[in-house]
Amino acid sequence: MRLTRQTNYAVRILMFCASNPGLSRIAQIAEFYAISEPFLFKILQAMTKAGLIDTVRGRSGGIRLSRPAEEIRLGHVVRLIEENFDLVECFEAGETQCPLIASCGMSEALKEALDAFFAVLDRYSIADLTDKQRNIGILARLELLKMEPLATH
Amino acid sequence: MRLTRQTNYAVRILMFCASNPGLSRIAQIAEFYAISEPFLFKILQAMTKAGLIDTVRGRSGGIRLSRPAEEIRLGHVVRLIEENFDLVECFEAGETQCPLIASCGMSEALKEALDAFFAVLDRYSIADLTDKQRNIGILARLELLKMEPLATH
Repeated sequence: MRLTRQTNYAVRILMFCASNPGLSRIAQIAEFYAISEPFLFKILQAMTKAGLIDTVRGRSGGIRLSRPAEEIRLGHVVRLIEENFDLVECFEAGETQCPLIASCGMSEALKEALDAFFAVLDRYSIADLTDKQRNIGILARLELLKMEPLATH
Repeated sequence: MRLTRQTNYAVRILMFCASNPGLSRIAQIAEFYAISEPFLFKILQAMTKAGLIDTVRGRSGGIRLSRPAEEIRLGHVVRLIEENFDLVECFEAGETQCPLIASCGMSEALKEALDAFFAVLDRYSIADLTDKQRNIGILARLELLKMEPLATH
């Protein structure tokens, strides 16, 4: 049972932006997390469309959160980016030959468990994940990046 | 986010045995769920080792629950069979280059969410998943199987 890499990095991109008061450059985030820029762009597309991220174009452009980090719920981001929550194949219509499909207690239990999973994620905002104390590491790294500017793209 | 097919069918095998008062034959279960016998044997191995299933060898042999269905928790079965609960790569030691690893609020939130997920599964026993009312379908099919005996293996 695992979340996709996309979901994982979607949250981390938001955490990065929440930690950086100005605009964050794509190259800067990609370098920070050691991920490729195309992969990052793919995730950004969904988050821009969903109104979580604003893009400022141009030489000194970059990305930033569209709304305060306190207002972005972790559960919302995971639901948005994760492609599939069909914990078992029988959650998908027409994907099972199991004769229990109409009366199975397992799928009900799993759905209830998934609701409990999201209830916890909905309690956390991106701001909660990046509060000042936690954030010492990311802020220190951002300072380092400012001191050693990246090549212009 | 999805459980493995192994986990899914481990639960269903236990549900089958809980619904069948006598010994269940491998061929009977495999036919019922339309899965292959080698796949079924692979799952049974882990459940036999964990003391959930007893095997009776011989011509009229088969399998049955080692303990009452009321005493087998869904959470226990899922923990036993599912191979990996590292929801994100950084749960695995040495598998991430993320600089947030030491102070990340996301992994804490995800671990808490996973605990909530299992707390629900631990509330359900195999007996809960196969109570009499739910079980009409599986029992009716078992009756059918009795009337049309399978080829001897």
